[in-house]
Amino acid sequence: MRNLRFTISYDGTAYSGFQIQPKSDTIQYRLEQAVYLLTGETVKVISSGRTDAGVHAKAQVINFTTTSKIPVERWCLALNARLPKDIVAHTAEEVLPTFHSRKAAKRKTYCYTIRSARFPDVFHRNYEYHHPTHLNVEAMREALPCLLGEHDFTSFCTVRTDKEIKVRTLYEVRMETESDAYLATGKVDRIRLIITGNGFLYNMVRIIVGTLLQIGEGKRPPSDMLRVLEAQDRSLAGPTAEAMGLTLWKVDY
Amino acid sequence: MRNLRFTISYDGTAYSGFQIQPKSDTIQYRLEQAVYLLTGETVKVISSGRTDAGVHAKAQVINFTTTSKIPVERWCLALNARLPKDIVAHTAEEVLPTFHSRKAAKRKTYCYTIRSARFPDVFHRNYEYHHPTHLNVEAMREALPCLLGEHDFTSFCTVRTDKEIKVRTLYEVRMETESDAYLATGKVDRIRLIITGNGFLYNMVRIIVGTLLQIGEGKRPPSDMLRVLEAQDRSLAGPTAEAMGLTLWKVDY
Repeated sequence: MRNLRFTISYDGTAYSGFQIQPKSDTIQYRLEQAVYLLTGETVKVISSGRTDAGVHAKAQVINFTTTSKIPVERWCLALNARLPKDIVAHTAEEVLPTFHSRKAAKRKTYCYTIRSARFPDVFHRNYEYHHPTHLNVEAMREALPCLLGEHDFTSFCTVRTDKEIKVRTLYEVRMETESDAYLATGKVDRIRLIITGNGFLYNMVRIIVGTLLQIGEGKRPPSDMLRVLEAQDRSLAGPTAEAMGLTLWKVDY
Repeated sequence: MRNLRFTISYDGTAYSGFQIQPKSDTIQYRLEQAVYLLTGETVKVISSGRTDAGVHAKAQVINFTTTSKIPVERWCLALNARLPKDIVAHTAEEVLPTFHSRKAAKRKTYCYTIRSARFPDVFHRNYEYHHPTHLNVEAMREALPCLLGEHDFTSFCTVRTDKEIKVRTLYEVRMETESDAYLATGKVDRIRLIITGNGFLYNMVRIIVGTLLQIGEGKRPPSDMLRVLEAQDRSLAGPTAEAMGLTLWKVDY
Protein backbone atom coordinates (compact mmCIF):
# COMPACT_ATOMS: atom_id res chain seq x y z
CA MET A 1 0.00 0.00 0.00
CA ARG A 2 1.23 3.49 -0.90
CA ASN A 3 0.16 6.63 0.92
CA LEU A 4 -0.29 9.57 -1.48
CA ARG A 5 -0.57 13.20 -0.47
CA PHE A 6 -2.04 15.91 -2.73
CA THR A 7 -2.55 19.64 -2.72
CA ILE A 8 -5.94 20.45 -4.22
CA SER A 9 -7.98 23.58 -4.97
CA TYR A 10 -11.71 23.76 -5.24
CA ASP A 11 -14.49 26.20 -5.90
CA GLY A 12 -16.98 25.12 -3.21
CA THR A 13 -19.97 26.95 -4.74
CA ALA A 14 -21.64 23.85 -6.17
CA TYR A 15 -20.91 21.49 -3.25
CA SER A 16 -22.43 20.58 0.10
CA GLY A 17 -19.00 20.85 1.69
CA PHE A 18 -16.00 18.56 1.75
CA GLN A 19 -17.27 15.58 3.70
CA ILE A 20 -19.14 12.79 1.98
CA GLN A 21 -22.84 12.51 2.86
CA PRO A 22 -25.81 10.71 1.38
CA LYS A 23 -27.69 12.39 -1.49
CA SER A 24 -25.36 15.39 -1.63
CA ASP A 25 -22.58 16.32 -3.96
CA THR A 26 -19.37 16.79 -1.99
CA ILE A 27 -15.68 17.32 -2.71
CA GLN A 28 -14.74 14.04 -0.97
CA TYR A 29 -17.27 12.14 -3.09
CA ARG A 30 -15.88 13.62 -6.31
CA LEU A 31 -12.29 12.82 -5.30
CA GLU A 32 -13.10 9.24 -4.33
CA GLN A 33 -15.07 8.85 -7.55
CA ALA A 34 -12.09 10.12 -9.59
CA VAL A 35 -9.75 7.65 -7.87
CA TYR A 36 -12.26 4.87 -8.53
CA LEU A 37 -12.50 5.80 -12.21
CA LEU A 38 -8.72 5.83 -12.44
CA THR A 39 -7.80 2.71 -10.45
CA GLY A 40 -10.99 0.75 -9.81
CA GLU A 41 -10.28 1.06 -6.10
CA THR A 42 -12.59 2.38 -3.41
CA VAL A 43 -10.42 4.65 -1.28
CA LYS A 44 -11.19 6.87 1.69
CA VAL A 45 -9.89 10.38 1.12
CA ILE A 46 -8.66 12.12 4.29
CA SER A 47 -8.33 15.92 4.33
CA SER A 48 -6.64 18.40 6.66
CA GLY A 49 -10.18 19.23 7.78
CA ARG A 50 -13.67 19.45 6.38
CA THR A 51 -14.81 22.64 4.77
CA ASP A 52 -18.49 23.59 4.93
CA ALA A 53 -20.95 23.97 2.09
CA GLY A 54 -19.92 26.85 -0.16
CA VAL A 55 -16.44 27.22 1.36
CA HIS A 56 -13.50 27.14 -1.06
CA ALA A 57 -9.94 25.88 -0.88
CA LYS A 58 -6.84 27.20 -2.54
CA ALA A 59 -4.42 24.62 -1.14
CA GLN A 60 -6.27 21.94 0.80
CA VAL A 61 -4.16 18.87 1.62
CA ILE A 62 -5.55 15.36 1.28
CA ASN A 63 -4.14 11.83 1.42
CA PHE A 64 -5.29 8.30 0.77
CA THR A 65 -3.75 4.84 0.48
CA THR A 66 -3.76 2.93 -2.76
CA THR A 67 -2.33 -0.26 -4.25
CA SER A 68 -2.08 1.43 -7.66
CA LYS A 69 1.35 1.45 -9.28
CA ILE A 70 0.75 4.65 -11.28
CA PRO A 71 3.91 6.81 -10.87
CA VAL A 72 3.35 9.73 -8.52
CA GLU A 73 4.15 12.36 -11.17
CA ARG A 74 1.21 11.16 -13.32
CA TRP A 75 -1.46 11.33 -10.63
CA CYS A 76 -2.50 15.00 -10.84
CA LEU A 77 -3.11 14.96 -14.58
CA ALA A 78 -4.92 11.61 -14.34
CA LEU A 79 -7.17 12.76 -11.48
CA ASN A 80 -7.88 16.16 -13.05
CA ALA A 81 -9.08 14.42 -16.20
CA ARG A 82 -11.65 12.61 -14.01
CA LEU A 83 -12.64 15.54 -11.79
CA PRO A 84 -15.11 18.32 -12.56
CA LYS A 85 -13.49 21.63 -13.54
CA ASP A 86 -14.12 23.17 -10.12
CA ILE A 87 -11.77 20.70 -8.36
CA VAL A 88 -8.08 20.64 -9.36
CA ALA A 89 -5.16 18.61 -8.00
CA HIS A 90 -1.91 20.61 -8.12
CA THR A 91 0.79 18.54 -6.44
CA ALA A 92 1.20 14.87 -5.55
CA GLU A 93 3.84 13.09 -3.51
CA GLU A 94 4.32 9.71 -1.93
CA VAL A 95 4.56 9.97 1.86
CA LEU A 96 5.23 7.66 4.81
CA PRO A 97 2.41 5.22 5.59
CA THR A 98 1.92 7.02 8.92
CA PHE A 99 1.14 10.43 7.35
CA HIS A 100 -2.45 11.57 8.08
CA SER A 101 -3.43 14.92 6.56
CA ARG A 102 -5.69 15.90 9.47
CA LYS A 103 -3.68 14.62 12.42
CA ALA A 104 -0.35 15.91 11.09
CA ALA A 105 -1.57 19.43 10.25
CA LYS A 106 0.35 22.00 12.34
CA ARG A 107 -1.10 25.30 11.14
CA LYS A 108 -3.93 26.32 8.87
CA THR A 109 -4.52 29.63 7.16
CA TYR A 110 -7.95 30.82 6.12
CA CYS A 111 -8.81 33.91 4.11
CA TYR A 112 -12.19 35.62 4.34
CA THR A 113 -12.84 38.11 1.56
CA ILE A 114 -15.31 40.98 1.79
CA ARG A 115 -16.25 42.99 -1.28
CA SER A 116 -16.81 46.38 0.31
CA ALA A 117 -18.29 48.40 -2.52
CA ARG A 118 -21.72 49.40 -3.63
CA PHE A 119 -21.89 46.65 -6.26
CA PRO A 120 -20.39 43.15 -6.53
CA ASP A 121 -17.37 42.29 -8.66
CA VAL A 122 -18.72 39.84 -11.27
CA PHE A 123 -15.43 37.96 -11.54
CA HIS A 124 -15.26 37.21 -7.82
CA ARG A 125 -18.98 37.02 -7.13
CA ASN A 126 -18.82 33.44 -5.81
CA TYR A 127 -15.65 33.93 -3.78
CA GLU A 128 -16.35 37.00 -1.68
CA TYR A 129 -19.09 38.29 0.54
CA HIS A 130 -20.66 41.46 -0.81
CA HIS A 131 -21.17 44.17 1.81
CA PRO A 132 -22.59 47.21 0.00
CA THR A 133 -22.44 49.80 2.78
CA HIS A 134 -19.43 51.51 4.38
CA LEU A 135 -17.12 49.60 6.71
CA ASN A 136 -14.78 51.32 9.14
CA VAL A 137 -11.57 49.50 8.29
CA GLU A 138 -9.58 51.13 11.09
CA ALA A 139 -12.07 50.03 13.74
CA MET A 140 -11.97 46.48 12.33
CA ARG A 141 -8.18 46.42 12.45
CA GLU A 142 -8.18 47.65 16.04
CA ALA A 143 -10.34 44.68 17.08
CA LEU A 144 -7.96 42.00 15.84
CA PRO A 145 -4.82 41.84 18.04
CA CYS A 146 -6.70 40.52 21.09
CA LEU A 147 -7.40 37.31 19.17
CA LEU A 148 -3.71 36.45 18.82
CA GLY A 149 -2.25 33.71 21.01
CA GLU A 150 -3.86 30.91 22.97
CA HIS A 151 -7.49 31.43 24.00
CA ASP A 152 -10.69 29.57 24.68
CA PHE A 153 -12.70 30.43 21.55
CA THR A 154 -16.10 29.17 22.85
CA SER A 155 -17.69 32.52 21.91
CA PHE A 156 -16.71 31.97 18.28
CA CYS A 157 -17.87 28.38 17.95
CA THR A 158 -21.25 27.14 16.77
CA VAL A 159 -22.94 25.47 19.74
CA ARG A 160 -23.66 22.19 17.92
CA THR A 161 -20.08 20.93 17.96
CA ASP A 162 -18.63 17.72 19.38
CA LYS A 163 -15.25 19.21 20.23
CA GLU A 164 -15.00 19.62 23.98
CA ILE A 165 -11.75 21.52 24.14
CA LYS A 166 -12.28 24.98 22.74
CA VAL A 167 -8.75 26.28 23.24
CA ARG A 168 -6.87 27.19 20.07
CA THR A 169 -3.83 29.31 19.25
CA LEU A 170 -3.86 31.99 16.56
CA TYR A 171 -0.47 32.92 15.16
CA GLU A 172 -1.49 35.66 12.78
CA VAL A 173 -4.64 37.73 12.21
CA ARG A 174 -4.13 40.24 9.47
CA MET A 175 -6.32 42.50 7.36
CA GLU A 176 -5.39 43.48 3.82
CA THR A 177 -7.26 46.03 1.74
CA GLU A 178 -7.38 46.56 -2.02
CA SER A 179 -8.70 49.21 -4.39
CA ASP A 180 -9.78 48.41 -7.89
CA ALA A 181 -7.89 50.61 -10.32
CA TYR A 182 -10.59 50.76 -12.96
CA LEU A 183 -13.97 50.60 -11.27
CA ALA A 184 -13.62 52.13 -7.86
CA THR A 185 -13.53 55.64 -6.61
CA GLY A 186 -10.17 55.32 -4.87
CA LYS A 187 -11.84 53.85 -1.81
CA VAL A 188 -11.11 50.44 -0.33
CA ASP A 189 -13.29 47.96 -2.18
CA ARG A 190 -11.97 44.62 -0.97
CA ILE A 191 -11.01 43.53 2.54
CA ARG A 192 -9.27 40.25 3.27
CA LEU A 193 -8.98 38.79 6.73
CA ILE A 194 -6.08 36.33 6.82
CA ILE A 195 -6.00 34.18 9.89
CA THR A 196 -3.51 31.45 10.83
CA GLY A 197 -3.88 29.09 13.76
CA ASN A 198 -3.08 25.63 15.05
CA GLY A 199 -6.71 24.66 14.49
CA PHE A 200 -10.17 26.17 14.16
CA LEU A 201 -13.46 25.39 15.86
CA TYR A 202 -16.66 24.86 13.92
CA ASN A 203 -17.54 28.15 12.12
CA MET A 204 -14.84 29.97 14.08
CA VAL A 205 -13.55 32.15 11.24
CA ARG A 206 -17.05 32.96 10.05
CA ILE A 207 -18.23 34.01 13.54
CA ILE A 208 -15.12 36.15 14.04
CA VAL A 209 -15.90 37.80 10.68
CA GLY A 210 -19.58 38.24 11.60
CA THR A 211 -18.50 40.06 14.78
CA LEU A 212 -15.89 42.06 12.88
CA LEU A 213 -18.49 43.20 10.34
CA GLN A 214 -20.66 44.59 13.14
CA ILE A 215 -17.60 46.50 14.39
CA GLY A 216 -16.99 47.81 10.87
CA GLU A 217 -20.64 48.87 10.63
CA GLY A 218 -20.30 50.83 13.87
CA LYS A 219 -22.82 48.61 15.69
CA ARG A 220 -20.17 47.60 18.25
CA PRO A 221 -16.94 49.22 19.47
CA PRO A 222 -13.62 47.52 18.58
CA SER A 223 -13.20 46.63 22.28
CA ASP A 224 -16.15 44.24 21.95
CA MET A 225 -13.95 41.60 20.36
CA LEU A 226 -12.03 41.13 23.63
CA ARG A 227 -15.19 41.35 25.72
CA VAL A 228 -16.87 38.64 23.61
CA LEU A 229 -13.74 36.45 23.62
CA GLU A 230 -13.43 36.61 27.41
CA ALA A 231 -17.12 35.91 28.02
CA GLN A 232 -16.88 32.42 26.43
CA ASP A 233 -20.48 32.77 25.31
CA ARG A 234 -21.52 32.26 21.67
CA SER A 235 -24.64 34.40 22.11
CA LEU A 236 -22.53 37.53 22.60
CA ALA A 237 -20.69 37.24 19.27
CA GLY A 238 -22.01 38.38 15.90
CA PRO A 239 -23.77 36.16 13.35
CA THR A 240 -21.94 33.52 11.28
CA ALA A 241 -20.73 35.28 8.11
CA GLU A 242 -21.68 33.74 4.77
CA ALA A 243 -19.70 30.70 3.60
CA MET A 244 -18.93 32.04 0.10
CA GLY A 245 -16.34 34.52 1.41
CA LEU A 246 -14.26 31.83 3.10
CA THR A 247 -11.30 30.03 1.55
CA LEU A 248 -8.93 27.55 3.16
CA TRP A 249 -5.71 29.20 2.01
CA LYS A 250 -3.00 26.74 3.05
CA VAL A 251 -2.04 24.04 5.52
CA ASP A 252 1.39 23.72 7.10
CA TYR A 253 2.88 20.44 8.33
CA MET B 1 -35.55 62.12 -23.76
CA ARG B 2 -32.56 61.60 -21.44
CA ASN B 3 -29.33 59.96 -22.55
CA LEU B 4 -27.87 57.74 -19.83
CA ARG B 5 -24.35 56.35 -19.78
CA PHE B 6 -23.28 53.37 -17.65
CA THR B 7 -20.14 51.47 -16.82
CA ILE B 8 -20.89 47.76 -16.67
CA SER B 9 -18.99 44.55 -15.97
CA TYR B 10 -19.88 41.13 -17.22
CA ASP B 11 -18.73 37.56 -17.10
CA GLY B 12 -19.20 36.57 -20.74
CA THR B 13 -19.00 32.80 -20.15
CA ALA B 14 -22.72 32.14 -20.48
CA TYR B 15 -23.41 34.53 -23.39
CA SER B 16 -23.22 34.53 -27.16
CA GLY B 17 -21.44 37.87 -27.03
CA PHE B 18 -22.66 41.43 -26.51
CA GLN B 19 -24.79 42.03 -29.58
CA ILE B 20 -28.42 41.00 -29.68
CA GLN B 21 -29.23 38.13 -32.04
CA PRO B 22 -32.18 35.81 -32.49
CA LYS B 23 -32.37 32.66 -30.32
CA SER B 24 -29.19 33.49 -28.39
CA ASP B 25 -28.65 34.89 -24.95
CA THR B 26 -26.61 38.08 -25.19
CA ILE B 27 -25.51 40.89 -22.89
CA GLN B 28 -27.40 43.48 -24.93
CA TYR B 29 -30.61 41.42 -24.70
CA ARG B 30 -30.27 41.14 -20.93
CA LEU B 31 -29.64 44.87 -20.54
CA GLU B 32 -32.59 45.85 -22.75
CA GLN B 33 -34.75 43.34 -20.87
CA ALA B 34 -33.72 44.86 -17.52
CA VAL B 35 -34.59 48.38 -18.75
CA TYR B 36 -37.93 47.07 -20.01
CA LEU B 37 -38.70 45.44 -16.66
CA LEU B 38 -37.79 48.68 -14.91
CA THR B 39 -39.48 51.27 -17.14
CA GLY B 40 -41.74 49.42 -19.57
CA GLU B 41 -39.76 51.00 -22.40
CA THR B 42 -38.08 49.22 -25.30
CA VAL B 43 -34.66 50.85 -25.61
CA LYS B 44 -31.70 50.17 -27.84
CA VAL B 45 -28.54 49.78 -25.81
CA ILE B 46 -25.39 51.08 -27.54
CA SER B 47 -21.97 49.91 -26.36
CA SER B 48 -18.40 51.09 -26.97
CA GLY B 49 -18.13 48.00 -29.17
CA ARG B 50 -19.37 44.44 -29.32
CA THR B 51 -17.53 41.74 -27.47
CA ASP B 52 -17.58 38.20 -28.87
CA ALA B 53 -19.04 35.07 -27.31
CA GLY B 54 -17.18 34.19 -24.11
CA VAL B 55 -15.34 37.54 -23.90
CA HIS B 56 -15.67 39.45 -20.61
CA ALA B 57 -15.79 43.12 -19.67
CA LYS B 58 -14.52 44.83 -16.57
CA ALA B 59 -15.59 48.35 -17.53
CA GLN B 60 -17.62 48.34 -20.72
CA VAL B 61 -19.43 51.61 -21.46
CA ILE B 62 -23.01 51.67 -22.73
CA ASN B 63 -25.67 54.32 -23.27
CA PHE B 64 -29.33 54.51 -24.20
CA THR B 65 -32.07 57.11 -24.31
CA THR B 66 -35.09 56.92 -22.08
CA THR B 67 -38.13 58.98 -21.10
CA SER B 68 -37.99 57.57 -17.57
CA LYS B 69 -37.75 60.09 -14.74
CA ILE B 70 -35.93 57.75 -12.34
CA PRO B 71 -33.07 59.78 -10.77
CA VAL B 72 -29.68 58.83 -12.19
CA GLU B 73 -28.27 57.73 -8.82
CA ARG B 74 -30.94 55.03 -8.52
CA TRP B 75 -30.38 53.40 -11.89
CA CYS B 76 -27.54 50.99 -11.09
CA LEU B 77 -29.25 49.41 -8.11
CA ALA B 78 -32.53 49.19 -10.03
CA LEU B 79 -30.93 47.60 -13.09
CA ASN B 80 -28.78 45.19 -11.06
CA ALA B 81 -31.91 43.93 -9.33
CA ARG B 82 -33.25 43.03 -12.79
CA LEU B 83 -30.03 41.65 -14.29
CA PRO B 84 -28.53 38.17 -13.85
CA LYS B 85 -25.62 38.02 -11.37
CA ASP B 86 -23.04 37.86 -14.16
CA ILE B 87 -23.86 41.38 -15.42
CA VAL B 88 -23.40 44.33 -13.05
CA ALA B 89 -23.88 48.07 -13.62
CA HIS B 90 -21.35 50.10 -11.60
CA THR B 91 -21.78 53.75 -12.53
CA ALA B 92 -24.53 55.80 -14.17
CA GLU B 93 -24.57 59.38 -15.37
CA GLU B 94 -26.76 61.59 -17.50
CA VAL B 95 -24.92 62.77 -20.60
CA LEU B 96 -25.56 65.09 -23.54
CA PRO B 97 -28.09 63.81 -26.10
CA THR B 98 -25.26 63.64 -28.65
CA PHE B 99 -23.12 61.19 -26.63
CA HIS B 100 -22.73 57.83 -28.42
CA SER B 101 -20.67 55.22 -26.56
CA ARG B 102 -19.18 53.69 -29.71
CA LYS B 103 -18.61 56.80 -31.81
CA ALA B 104 -17.17 58.83 -28.93
CA ALA B 105 -14.74 56.15 -27.71
CA LYS B 106 -11.15 57.43 -27.98
CA ARG B 107 -9.12 54.53 -26.61
CA LYS B 108 -9.87 51.01 -25.50
CA THR B 109 -7.82 48.71 -23.32
CA TYR B 110 -8.08 44.94 -23.49
CA CYS B 111 -6.42 42.42 -21.22
CA TYR B 112 -5.69 38.85 -22.30
CA THR B 113 -4.82 36.51 -19.44
CA ILE B 114 -2.85 33.29 -19.84
CA ARG B 115 -2.59 30.80 -17.00
CA SER B 116 0.88 29.46 -17.65
CA ALA B 117 1.11 26.56 -15.22
CA ARG B 118 0.64 22.83 -15.39
CA PHE B 119 -2.87 23.01 -13.97
CA PRO B 120 -5.66 25.60 -14.13
CA ASP B 121 -6.52 27.98 -11.29
CA VAL B 122 -10.09 27.00 -10.29
CA PHE B 123 -11.01 30.54 -9.23
CA HIS B 124 -10.10 32.04 -12.58
CA ARG B 125 -10.93 29.06 -14.78
CA ASN B 126 -13.46 30.97 -16.89
CA TYR B 127 -11.39 34.15 -17.18
CA GLU B 128 -8.03 32.94 -18.41
CA TYR B 129 -6.68 30.67 -21.10
CA HIS B 130 -4.85 27.67 -19.67
CA HIS B 131 -1.53 26.95 -21.37
CA PRO B 132 0.02 23.99 -19.51
CA THR B 133 3.47 23.92 -21.09
CA HIS B 134 6.40 26.33 -20.75
CA LEU B 135 6.28 29.77 -22.37
CA ASN B 136 9.38 31.84 -23.01
CA VAL B 137 8.25 35.12 -21.49
CA GLU B 138 11.34 37.04 -22.60
CA ALA B 139 10.84 36.05 -26.25
CA MET B 140 7.18 37.10 -26.01
CA ARG B 141 8.14 40.47 -24.55
CA GLU B 142 10.68 41.03 -27.31
CA ALA B 143 7.98 40.59 -29.95
CA LEU B 144 5.72 43.38 -28.67
CA PRO B 145 7.28 46.82 -29.32
CA CYS B 146 6.92 46.54 -33.12
CA LEU B 147 3.14 46.65 -32.68
CA LEU B 148 3.17 50.11 -31.11
CA GLY B 149 2.06 53.07 -33.18
CA GLU B 150 0.00 53.33 -36.36
CA HIS B 151 -0.05 50.25 -38.60
CA ASP B 152 -2.21 48.36 -41.04
CA PHE B 153 -3.25 45.37 -38.91
CA THR B 154 -4.67 43.27 -41.78
CA SER B 155 -2.55 40.30 -40.67
CA PHE B 156 -4.27 40.33 -37.29
CA CYS B 157 -7.84 40.62 -38.52
CA THR B 158 -10.28 37.80 -39.25
CA VAL B 159 -10.93 37.81 -42.99
CA ARG B 160 -14.72 37.95 -42.71
CA THR B 161 -14.91 41.57 -41.64
CA ASP B 162 -16.73 44.48 -43.20
CA LYS B 163 -14.23 47.11 -42.10
CA GLU B 164 -12.26 48.27 -45.10
CA ILE B 165 -9.74 50.42 -43.33
CA LYS B 166 -7.43 48.20 -41.33
CA VAL B 167 -5.20 50.93 -39.94
CA ARG B 168 -5.22 51.29 -36.15
CA THR B 169 -2.93 52.91 -33.58
CA LEU B 170 -1.71 51.06 -30.51
CA TYR B 171 -0.62 53.30 -27.62
CA GLU B 172 0.53 50.63 -25.20
CA VAL B 173 1.31 46.90 -25.41
CA ARG B 174 2.53 45.57 -22.09
CA MET B 175 3.07 42.17 -20.54
CA GLU B 176 2.71 41.59 -16.80
CA THR B 177 3.61 38.35 -15.05
CA GLU B 178 2.50 36.97 -11.70
CA SER B 179 3.50 34.10 -9.44
CA ASP B 180 1.09 32.46 -7.07
CA ALA B 181 2.48 32.57 -3.55
CA TYR B 182 0.85 29.36 -2.36
CA LEU B 183 0.54 26.98 -5.28
CA ALA B 184 3.37 27.72 -7.63
CA THR B 185 6.97 26.75 -7.66
CA GLY B 186 8.30 30.30 -7.87
CA LYS B 187 7.83 30.28 -11.64
CA VAL B 188 5.63 32.67 -13.58
CA ASP B 189 2.16 31.20 -13.59
CA ARG B 190 0.05 33.99 -15.05
CA ILE B 191 0.79 36.28 -17.99
CA ARG B 192 -1.35 39.29 -18.85
CA LEU B 193 -1.12 41.12 -22.14
CA ILE B 194 -2.49 44.63 -21.74
CA ILE B 195 -3.09 46.44 -24.97
CA THR B 196 -4.46 49.94 -25.57
CA GLY B 197 -5.41 51.36 -28.93
CA ASN B 198 -7.71 53.79 -30.71
CA GLY B 199 -9.69 50.82 -32.01
CA PHE B 200 -9.40 47.13 -32.71
CA LEU B 201 -10.22 45.03 -35.76
CA TYR B 202 -12.29 41.87 -35.54
CA ASN B 203 -10.38 39.31 -33.39
CA MET B 204 -7.29 41.54 -33.45
CA VAL B 205 -6.21 41.01 -29.85
CA ARG B 206 -6.89 37.27 -30.02
CA ILE B 207 -4.85 36.84 -33.22
CA ILE B 208 -1.96 38.86 -31.75
CA VAL B 209 -2.11 36.57 -28.70
CA GLY B 210 -2.28 33.45 -30.87
CA THR B 211 0.89 34.60 -32.65
CA LEU B 212 2.54 35.55 -29.37
CA LEU B 213 1.82 32.11 -27.91
CA GLN B 214 3.64 30.48 -30.83
CA ILE B 215 6.60 32.77 -30.11
CA GLY B 216 6.45 31.77 -26.42
CA GLU B 217 6.36 28.11 -27.41
CA GLY B 218 9.50 28.56 -29.52
CA LYS B 219 7.67 27.76 -32.75
CA ARG B 220 8.51 31.20 -34.17
CA PRO B 221 11.24 33.74 -33.42
CA PRO B 222 10.23 37.06 -31.77
CA SER B 223 11.09 38.83 -35.04
CA ASP B 224 8.12 37.07 -36.66
CA MET B 225 5.71 39.58 -35.16
CA LEU B 226 7.14 42.38 -37.32
CA ARG B 227 7.41 40.13 -40.37
CA VAL B 228 3.74 39.11 -40.03
CA LEU B 229 2.61 42.69 -39.39
CA GLU B 230 4.39 44.01 -42.48
CA ALA B 231 3.10 41.23 -44.74
CA GLN B 232 -0.55 42.34 -44.26
CA ASP B 233 -1.63 38.73 -44.67
CA ARG B 234 -3.85 36.96 -42.11
CA SER B 235 -2.57 33.54 -43.17
CA LEU B 236 0.90 34.30 -41.80
CA ALA B 237 -0.26 35.06 -38.25
CA GLY B 238 -1.00 32.49 -35.56
CA PRO B 239 -4.45 31.09 -34.73
CA THR B 240 -7.14 33.13 -32.94
CA ALA B 241 -6.60 32.58 -29.19
CA GLU B 242 -9.58 31.38 -27.14
CA ALA B 243 -12.19 33.97 -26.17
CA MET B 244 -12.29 33.12 -22.46
CA GLY B 245 -8.92 34.79 -21.80
CA LEU B 246 -10.04 38.16 -23.18
CA THR B 247 -11.50 41.01 -21.13
CA LEU B 248 -12.42 44.51 -22.26
CA TRP B 249 -10.61 46.34 -19.47
CA LYS B 250 -11.65 49.98 -19.97
CA VAL B 251 -12.76 52.57 -22.49
CA ASP B 252 -11.52 56.16 -22.54
CA TYR B 253 -13.51 59.09 -23.92
